Amino acid sequence: MEKFEVNILGCGSALPTTRHQATSQVLNIREKLFMIDCGEGTQVQLRRSRLKFSRLNHIFISHLHGDHCFGLIGLISTFGMLERTADLHIYCHAELERLLSPQLEFFCKGMSFQVIFHPFNPGEKKVIYEDRSLTVETIPLRHRLPTCGFLFREKPTPNHINREMIDFHGVPIWMMNRIKNGEDYVKEDGTVVPNSVLTYPSDPPRSYAYCSDTTFLPRIAEQVKEVTLLFHEATFAESEAVRARQTLHSTAREAAQIAHNASVGQLLIGHFSARYEDEAVLLQEAKEVFPNTLLAYENQRICL
Amino acid sequence: MEKFEVNILGCGSALPTTRHQATSQVLNIREKLFMIDCGEGTQVQLRRSRLKFSRLNHIFISHLHGDHCFGLIGLISTFGMLERTADLHIYCHAELERLLSPQLEFFCKGMSFQVIFHPFNPGEKKVIYEDRSLTVETIPLRHRLPTCGFLFREKPTPNHINREMIDFHGVPIWMMNRIKNGEDYVKEDGTVVPNSVLTYPSDPPRSYAYCSDTTFLPRIAEQVKEVTLLFHEATFAESEAVRARQTLHSTAREAAQIAHNASVGQLLIGHFSARYEDEAVLLQEAKEVFPNTLLAYENQRICL
Repeated sequence: MEKFEVNILGCGSALPTTRHQATSQVLNIREKLFMIDCGEGTQVQLRRSRLKFSRLNHIFISHLHGDHCFGLIGLISTFGMLERTADLHIYCHAELERLLSPQLEFFCKGMSFQVIFHPFNPGEKKVIYEDRSLTVETIPLRHRLPTCGFLFREKPTPNHINREMIDFHGVPIWMMNRIKNGEDYVKEDGTVVPNSVLTYPSDPPRSYAYCSDTTFLPRIAEQVKEVTLLFHEATFAESEAVRARQTLHSTAREAAQIAHNASVGQLLIGHFSARYEDEAVLLQEAKEVFPNTLLAYENQRICL
Repeated sequence: MEKFEVNILGCGSALPTTRHQATSQVLNIREKLFMIDCGEGTQVQLRRSRLKFSRLNHIFISHLHGDHCFGLIGLISTFGMLERTADLHIYCHAELERLLSPQLEFFCKGMSFQVIFHPFNPGEKKVIYEDRSLTVETIPLRHRLPTCGFLFREKPTPNHINREMIDFHGVPIWMMNRIKNGEDYVKEDGTVVPNSVLTYPSDPPRSYAYCSDTTFLPRIAEQVKEVTLLFHEATFAESEAVRARQTLHSTAREAAQIAHNASVGQLLIGHFSARYEDEAVLLQEAKEVFPNTLLAYENQRICL
């Protein structure tokens, strides 16, 4: 099966600790890398992950809090020193370009590649990236400033050919693509060989949803329905539910509630408040609602 | 003796590695903290050092390459979240304020403290900070853009009173400060008791010089003459001397040559190129010229 991996570079929240890095994740989808958020220190974590810098061409920024974007200038600057040539595409709120441009002009003058900003409206659900095998859609969230999550979805792939049955029924080569795409085969005598006889179903498309930072927002469930893996922030335990509400963050239980309502395959929680010495309490509270829950940790790699 | 400590938070060079952090150091001088440079990731290193954030009021930036200043915005932003109230003073090239201000306005709006920039001319040797016990002077360096080092120098302290001799000669209390400051005591009968009889000499003033980044610049030696500890960049080994010259950096041997010419107490080398898997070769080459040389490393603490 083609690669679809989630790499956690950092899963802490706003206040840095020696236990958790600021937020960043990298998806490896068929050897293309997609970064989500880029907190301070991300470039070192990326190096630690041994993912290839040169395969990263797309960065998605959920919102403009420092713990989600302060690592960008360092990462871009390092790309410059490494004499990268491929364009780097950054998908973000329009404001980021205004904030980053003076620094890019000063620190990255004469770089051998372009940084191309793709502004989007975080309040609107929209496909902001698409290639042959993948779409990325924004997930409008509710936080202290405009924020959205991202839904990565593989496109359905053609069925696999059942070579033996193709030979048995004498299907000609030139029909092969049509068979893969679901057509039946009609013999010269009019006999119909149904597609299901000639093919094996392909693997179901995989999907990953990233929802951070956000207050508990039940309507998310609809958009992330049955995703393979849902990352949802779980900044606080239930004992801090009031603080979660005030700061527009979620509790672990609320994250699990979204996972449950959306019948996702698996839930990954992160963006842990610095107050937790370990996150066992968060995991336990989430599992009570949605048993198939994992804690994020730095340098974690999950294969979908 | 009052505290005079050098804490190495990071001693790598421009390209980040998993072995070395970007440049930053913190001096703890009588429980006041002074930061020199602030590369990406400094705030986490500061936390790791267990130095008290609240005691840091002064930051000195040598030059505007990213590996010496990209950590500032994150550090300041975190100070904001911690509801710091004391002003934060940043001593730097004038350009930094222009570059940082839009980010401060956006990311640190409504902070409970002021960031006060103190621009200086890196080409000019000048005292840019002074308090009761300390001066900080710029050391003009030569690099690819305006750069200077910093010379931290304790002020001489008064002599210590020799209590027994004071009593023996019947020196009155009201003369005590004058005695500490070096006066002789003249008795009523005209006998002179020399100051050296009445006091012990105080500890000699300690000093720390930070020279990074710079090409080999023999004139530095004069300004850092006999400092207690000299930090000098040693980006390259002799085998890369040409590259050192091209990039306006120094070799370990050149750093040692400055230390030797200046007859410093001890040399600390750092700002290691990412190409060195370990820095033994740099240490060896430096020691051949100046035996009392140390390699910098992260979380190192040196008491002067």
